[in-house]
Amino acid sequence: MTASNQGLGIKRCLLFLGDITEPGFAKTAFGLRDWAGERCVGELRLPGATVSAGLPSLSPAQAAAQGARELVIGVAAPGGGIPPAWAPALVEALEAGLDIVSGMHVRLASLPQLLDAAARHGRRLVDVRNPPPSIPIANGLPRSGQRLLTVGTDCALGKKYTALALSRGLRARGMDAEFRATGQTGIMIAGSGMPIDAVVSDFVAGAAEVLSPAAAPGHIDVIEGQGSLFHPAFAGVSLGLLHGSQPDMFVVCHDPTRSHLLGYPHVPLPSIREVVAQTIALGRVTNPAIRCVGVALNTGSLDEHEAAAEIAALAERLPYPVADPMRGGPAFERLLDACCD
Amino acid sequence: MTASNQGLGIKRCLLFLGDITEPGFAKTAFGLRDWAGERCVGELRLPGATVSAGLPSLSPAQAAAQGARELVIGVAAPGGGIPPAWAPALVEALEAGLDIVSGMHVRLASLPQLLDAAARHGRRLVDVRNPPPSIPIANGLPRSGQRLLTVGTDCALGKKYTALALSRGLRARGMDAEFRATGQTGIMIAGSGMPIDAVVSDFVAGAAEVLSPAAAPGHIDVIEGQGSLFHPAFAGVSLGLLHGSQPDMFVVCHDPTRSHLLGYPHVPLPSIREVVAQTIALGRVTNPAIRCVGVALNTGSLDEHEAAAEIAALAERLPYPVADPMRGGPAFERLLDACCD
Repeated sequence: MTASNQGLGIKRCLLFLGDITEPGFAKTAFGLRDWAGERCVGELRLPGATVSAGLPSLSPAQAAAQGARELVIGVAAPGGGIPPAWAPALVEALEAGLDIVSGMHVRLASLPQLLDAAARHGRRLVDVRNPPPSIPIANGLPRSGQRLLTVGTDCALGKKYTALALSRGLRARGMDAEFRATGQTGIMIAGSGMPIDAVVSDFVAGAAEVLSPAAAPGHIDVIEGQGSLFHPAFAGVSLGLLHGSQPDMFVVCHDPTRSHLLGYPHVPLPSIREVVAQTIALGRVTNPAIRCVGVALNTGSLDEHEAAAEIAALAERLPYPVADPMRGGPAFERLLDACCD
Repeated sequence: MTASNQGLGIKRCLLFLGDITEPGFAKTAFGLRDWAGERCVGELRLPGATVSAGLPSLSPAQAAAQGARELVIGVAAPGGGIPPAWAPALVEALEAGLDIVSGMHVRLASLPQLLDAAARHGRRLVDVRNPPPSIPIANGLPRSGQRLLTVGTDCALGKKYTALALSRGLRARGMDAEFRATGQTGIMIAGSGMPIDAVVSDFVAGAAEVLSPAAAPGHIDVIEGQGSLFHPAFAGVSLGLLHGSQPDMFVVCHDPTRSHLLGYPHVPLPSIREVVAQTIALGRVTNPAIRCVGVALNTGSLDEHEAAAEIAALAERLPYPVADPMRGGPAFERLLDACCD
C-alpha cells in the first residue's frame, strides 16, 4: 500500500506471537504477513503458542541480523493487555537493537521493565493505538471527494482486508483511491491512520473527519470499518466512524459461517439486510446520498466450490454484487464496477 | 439527590461563570443552582460576562468566608478548554483556600499556573470528567433490576433535568429509584457517576454497564442520557450508552421550539417518532423488551398557556404521556405512572 510515512510500521520487522493458542487473536500478525509480507523477516513464538503466521522462527538477534528494525506485537486480545510472561522476550528484543511496536490499548511504557530496557539500549516503544492530540468535535459539514466505508455484521470478519483489496483493485484500474486505516493493524500496514477505538468518545466522529478530509472530486478514500452497528460493546465506535466518514458508498462484510457475534454467544448475528437498512438510516444524518454498493463475503473457511456456491446463492437474493475480495475473479470485478458507478 | 460520596461536588461552592455571553454554555452553573442550590453560596463573573445564575456576586474570599470550599467552573463550551483570561480568577480562588472543580475535557493540572498555585496553597484540582481506570469491554449480558434512560432529539434540551425529576418523582412515590449521572454537571450534582463522553470509545458501553450494575428487581436506575442518535458528532456516545444501559424504558426529551440541532444549523432536528423508532431498533440489541414510556417536553421558553397547549397538542398525536417535568402537574404524574407500569 502506498501511504504517508509517519514512522510507523514501515521498517522490516519480526512478528511476535506471544503464547497464544487462538488464531482470532493474531489478526495483526496475519494482516502484516498478508499485506506487508515483504517487511516481515520472521516470527517469534513463546513456549505454549500454537498459532503461527507461517514465517521462519527467528530470535530477536537473528531477526536483527536479517535487517529487522522492529519487533511488532502481532497479537491483540479484546481490550488490550500485555501478559507478564511476554516481558523477557520483549526485553531481549530491545537488547538486540529492535524497537517495539504495539497496537494494544495498554501503553508499552506502562511496563517498567520495557521502559528501563528501552532507555538502556536507546530503543523506541511505539504505541500505534495512540490518537493524535487536538482532535476536533465533528462539524458534520459535507466535504468534497468520495468516501467508501466497509461495515460489517460483526467484528473480525474482513472489513480491513476488504478495504485494502478494494483500494488495491481501484488503483489497479487507475483510480485515485487511498486506504484509510482505523485500527492498529491497518495503521501498521499503511504507515498512518487513526486508531478510532482509542479516541475519547466525544471526538470519534471528529477523528473520522480528520482521517478522510476533503479531497478532489475523483478521489476515493476507502475507509477501514470497525465493529458493527449491532455489536453490544462496539456499536458506538461504528456509528461515530460512520457519521464522521460521511460515506457515499459502503460495502457490507459478512462471514456466512458465523451465527452469533464472536465472543458473544448470546447475541445472534444481524442479517445483511438489517445492516444495510440501519447503515443507510443512520448514515443519512451526514450523507443523504449514502448507498450500499456490495457485499464482501469472507469465505476463508470454505473450499473453492463451497465458496462459489455461497457467493452465487447470496447474489441471487440480494440486489448488490457479492464477492470474496480475497478470491478475486469476475465477482470481485463486478464489486469494483459498483464502486466506480 | 442521594448519591454515593466520591468527594466530588458535595461541598458548598462558588459558581464560576467566566466571561461568557451565551447562556447555553452555563449548563453546569444552572444545573447546580437548580438541583443543588443549597450548596451554592454565590457566583463569580469576569468583566464582559452577560450570563448570571442569579446568585449573589462574591469574591473567592467572600465565598470562603460563607463556607464555600470549592470553586466550580460552571461553564462548559463544546469540546472543553480553559481560556487564559480565566487563570487569574482561578488562582485567586486557590489563594483564598478553595479547591477548583472542573467538568471540562482539558485537565486543570495542564495549566501550569493552576498547578503551581494549587501546590503552593495545598488545594486540590478536581476534574470530574476523568473516567475511572480499568473499565471493561461491555459483555452485553442481561442483568437484574430496571433501568430507564432519557434520550433526546438533540443535545442540551433536558435529558439531565428529566432524569433528575423522574428519579425524584419516583422516590416521592416510595420507589427505589436512583439517578445515574453520565455528564459533568450530573456528576457534580449527584456526587458520583460516569463521565461517559470522556471514556475511550471502545469502552463506552462497558462504562455504562459499570454505571448501572445489576440490582434488585424493584430497583430503577434513572440514567442521564447524552447527545442524540441523530447527532453528527455525538451519536456514537449516545449509542454506546444505550447499549450498555440496556434500558427497559426510555423517555424522549424534546424542545418544541428547536428546528435544527444546536450549533449545527445545517442539520434538521429529527422527529420524536424517528427517535422512538431508532432507539427501539438499536436498543433491542441488548434489551429486546425496550419500550418508550413517554415524552419530556422542554417548554422553558414558553409561557404557561403556550406550554400547556404544546403539551396537549403533542399528547394528542402520540401514544405516550407527554409532560414538562419542570412544570410537574397531572401530566407529569401520568408520565411517572407510565414508568411504574
